[in-house]
Amino acid sequence: MSAQAGRVACYARFCRNLSSEGTLIQSHFKDGVQRITLNSPQTRNALSLEMMTGLRKSLAEAHANTQVRAIVLSGHGPAFSAGHNLKEMTTEDGIEKHREIFHCCNELMFDIVRGESPVIAVVDGIAAAAGCQVVAMCDIVLATERSQFSTPGSSFGVFCSTPGIPLARAVPRKVASYMLLTGKAINAQEALRAGLVSKVVPEADLETEVEATCQAIIEKPRAIVTLGKRFFHQQLEMGLSPAFERGGGVMVDNLKYKDAQEGISAFKEKRKPTYSHTSEKI
Amino acid sequence: MSAQAGRVACYARFCRNLSSEGTLIQSHFKDGVQRITLNSPQTRNALSLEMMTGLRKSLAEAHANTQVRAIVLSGHGPAFSAGHNLKEMTTEDGIEKHREIFHCCNELMFDIVRGESPVIAVVDGIAAAAGCQVVAMCDIVLATERSQFSTPGSSFGVFCSTPGIPLARAVPRKVASYMLLTGKAINAQEALRAGLVSKVVPEADLETEVEATCQAIIEKPRAIVTLGKRFFHQQLEMGLSPAFERGGGVMVDNLKYKDAQEGISAFKEKRKPTYSHTSEKI
Amino acid sequence: MSAQAGRVACYARFCRNLSSEGTLIQSHFKDGVQRITLNSPQTRNALSLEMMTGLRKSLAEAHANTQVRAIVLSGHGPAFSAGHNLKEMTTEDGIEKHREIFHCCNELMFDIVRGESPVIAVVDGIAAAAGCQVVAMCDIVLATERSQFSTPGSSFGVFCSTPGIPLARAVPRKVASYMLLTGKAINAQEALRAGLVSKVVPEADLETEVEATCQAIIEKPRAIVTLGKRFFHQQLEMGLSPAFERGGGVMVDNLKYKDAQEGISAFKEKRKPTYSHTSEKI
Repeated sequence: MSAQAGRVACYARFCRNLSSEGTLIQSHFKDGVQRITLNSPQTRNALSLEMMTGLRKSLAEAHANTQVRAIVLSGHGPAFSAGHNLKEMTTEDGIEKHREIFHCCNELMFDIVRGESPVIAVVDGIAAAAGCQVVAMCDIVLATERSQFSTPGSSFGVFCSTPGIPLARAVPRKVASYMLLTGKAINAQEALRAGLVSKVVPEADLETEVEATCQAIIEKPRAIVTLGKRFFHQQLEMGLSPAFERGGGVMVDNLKYKDAQEGISAFKEKRKPTYSHTSEKI
Repeated sequence: MSAQAGRVACYARFCRNLSSEGTLIQSHFKDGVQRITLNSPQTRNALSLEMMTGLRKSLAEAHANTQVRAIVLSGHGPAFSAGHNLKEMTTEDGIEKHREIFHCCNELMFDIVRGESPVIAVVDGIAAAAGCQVVAMCDIVLATERSQFSTPGSSFGVFCSTPGIPLARAVPRKVASYMLLTGKAINAQEALRAGLVSKVVPEADLETEVEATCQAIIEKPRAIVTLGKRFFHQQLEMGLSPAFERGGGVMVDNLKYKDAQEGISAFKEKRKPTYSHTSEKI
Repeated sequence: MSAQAGRVACYARFCRNLSSEGTLIQSHFKDGVQRITLNSPQTRNALSLEMMTGLRKSLAEAHANTQVRAIVLSGHGPAFSAGHNLKEMTTEDGIEKHREIFHCCNELMFDIVRGESPVIAVVDGIAAAAGCQVVAMCDIVLATERSQFSTPGSSFGVFCSTPGIPLARAVPRKVASYMLLTGKAINAQEALRAGLVSKVVPEADLETEVEATCQAIIEKPRAIVTLGKRFFHQQLEMGLSPAFERGGGVMVDNLKYKDAQEGISAFKEKRKPTYSHTSEKI
């Protein structure tokens, strides 16, 4: 058995243990961080309708929980996610089922960007098709060196048209069109260069990096992070002039938050701030 | 004679041979690939009105030919293209001629993106001004290490305003504004980092890479690639929410294609798909 | 004292000497280049309302001066700028003061992009928050290896919502959201890869690079550079089709400039052009 095959086999056993609960989605809260894990390694975390529905539910709960300050999204097994379940896309499944799948998938995208807390995708393996789409949509992406990203749907007759939407907004256009038209994967370093991945680390350092990233977010006042995340996604869609006009108003509003004034006082007094993490205003 | 000068001289001789037919555009079809070559090495493949008109004709024929699955666009000689023919831009030529040139050039851009087949620019040398514009507009760009990309028009009093349009959409803004304002060239590796080029290879590997890229596209069903290319360019211009709404519909429609169902069946049955390459639906 | 601390201390002494005039903004003209320097090293060139007002005045004067062909913007001391002065953002300062600050900051952004001459940010140190915003807005950015870029406002309870506007348009989205949500800095090489910086050089080569960049711009006809800069920023906000339509008109108009015809004649006659640097037409 090659080292690579051995690693995969070992990983598979590890994942079968982890997934002993039998739930498609695992969600655990600890120290301000909600960890949501796609838990179907045997399907390479296929985004079946059931999986997406479960993920939407977990994300909704996490975003609604004011104790949650960061959401970490990862996959059990050697794939982050290999994308949609092609087996649900036959003519026998019917057009209504197809519509439901893509409606659910679209809603999932907005759950990620419209929610209150930053969503960090943690990728250690393959993120393909709709799996790559989820990654492209997250606020932050941490990946291991062995990770790979691809949108190979057209090889199976199903062009990755919706994955291309966040992909073409995350990376340069020609990187996106190369991936979409050839189906070829890019590796972690190429994904970093293209801007799809925020940071690449060796496998052994992944957990440390996840914790450091969450910690950096948790140190900041929750309501301010929510306000910032929301306006970020709004302004991306605006012209420069309206974005600045609206942005100036957001900054003025930001200063009314009790936690903003606490942050400024702490800065002036050279002390650590004590945040309420609420949206209370002065 | 320096090694560089020797290479260029040798190249020039080689190209004079190739261009013995005397046509400005050469277009050959083989195995699903239409190879269109700018064939005026002595003018560094200047995009004269005649050259652009010929290129438009060749592209139109290639896109209309259902046997064509990929279009490869390259230039004979040491330049992919040095851009417009400045000699057609004098006051004597007159404003109507100038209007015709830029109208034709704009239409050429839309021929590339609105056509049915992916267009792959293959660059082995200089792509400057409108030559760089064509490269920036293509779906995929393969380049050799010795290639260079620039928009130096302002040095000659003619700012590369139209080349800047696809350039600023292909690379980060400040890469584009640096190139446009200073006129300085970027090399192949810088172009790769910026996203202008999809892949950089040594000269000796260029033909192999072109074939591998074409092969990857040819393995996919033609009508699905066309559908995907079209929606890709459409969604780039849309807001996130309408893009996903429209994209969901495109995915549902994609599943109605006979070739989509063949791809899914082949995937389920773990066999190679046999595509019709038509837009026939079930 | 560490080497780093020693360097900073030495730098600080150097800057106190430079800033002996006591003006917040220094502005000097020489050989076509207006050098504007933020001159408050003791506040790390904080963009106080006074500083921004002074900068706006200097920029307005530079853009209005037809002798000026390029504007170089830098900061005295170890910071380009650490961003807004948080001490002006307390509840005591009042909402009207806050509104004035962000209005002034927004206008400053448009002074940079709407002016007649290219603005080159020269960064040798820290560019944080609104300091990073100014950098992201400039046409060209030259930076030393030791430079750092960050948007850490949320750590102080004030999310960098407005800095995020030009940042997210200069670099890939996920680079921007990582910087905004974690507050972590990126170094010069990371900023180059992301497209925030046009060129990174060793400290010793910075002045040479600045001069070479200015020289490249100065060699071009002034009115053509202005025309090009203006349309560049306009077309960034347009759809592809209207951008090309408008761009074609800009090219035709460009050819009417006396300096365009001089550039074309010089090209044809293989001589150096002699530009008027005016917007005179034929």
